[in-house]
Amino acid sequence: MTQHELVFRFATHADLPSIVRMLADDNLGSQRERYETPLPESYYLAFEQINRDPNHELIVAEQNGEVIGTLHLIFLPSISFQGRLRAQIESVRVDKRFQGQGIGSEMMKWSMERARQRGAHVVQLTTHKSREDAHRFYERLGFKGSHLGMKLSLK
Amino acid sequence: MTQHELVFRFATHADLPSIVRMLADDNLGSQRERYETPLPESYYLAFEQINRDPNHELIVAEQNGEVIGTLHLIFLPSISFQGRLRAQIESVRVDKRFQGQGIGSEMMKWSMERARQRGAHVVQLTTHKSREDAHRFYERLGFKGSHLGMKLSLK
Repeated sequence: MTQHELVFRFATHADLPSIVRMLADDNLGSQRERYETPLPESYYLAFEQINRDPNHELIVAEQNGEVIGTLHLIFLPSISFQGRLRAQIESVRVDKRFQGQGIGSEMMKWSMERARQRGAHVVQLTTHKSREDAHRFYERLGFKGSHLGMKLSLK
Repeated sequence: MTQHELVFRFATHADLPSIVRMLADDNLGSQRERYETPLPESYYLAFEQINRDPNHELIVAEQNGEVIGTLHLIFLPSISFQGRLRAQIESVRVDKRFQGQGIGSEMMKWSMERARQRGAHVVQLTTHKSREDAHRFYERLGFKGSHLGMKLSLK
């Protein structure tokens, strides 16, 4: 097995601590997640909703049996574009100890192929304007920054 | 009934021609939709998928019994932000004959309230960089253009 051989699979309940650890482990994530033992119940409730919806695929990437990456792939039926299916990617993270080895790129290529297999005509994502490395990363994969992503917090 | 009194409801099968007409009626939409009689079957197939998914709400706004606006509200369970629900808005359109009367703003406010009722902590959307009027419109409603929206077309 080479160092880079990745196995992709659907996340299980037991993967949640690894996933939350990765989500919490950066500047933006550390302000909004709670990586504790045990995890807050809200993470498990969200997982159950994701897990029972066939249009949601919470994915982990494993290397040598260890979870080192995650992403959330969502399929969105849409009237626009003649009713064609869209894919959306959220919450892409690679364990910091394994960054810079092409793992994120492999994860994205796997997701793009998965989206194609399921009949999506487009893959869409948003990334914070401050994540300039991420912009270049996605551009290298063929993404175009054609849109402004806007958010409104609800109180 | 004042001129602006709007009624919001879930779209039905019978509303699809009105919805597609509005989606097709601008510079970007005219290149990608097919507003024909009858509509291409793909629109109806997408509608069926949206209609049976409780996390999708395809909405129309009616005035005096006439459909004059549409939007697609999507609820996205997510692990990030401690497992909190997100709302996403796609395909917002107001019939050109009724633009400039505050109808889009009413539609958005209705959607924001709907998202709050269903427990979403954020409303997110993307808008093409070329739609500068739309950016200002969403900013007036409190949206912040914090993200870059990236898309990849799949062949």
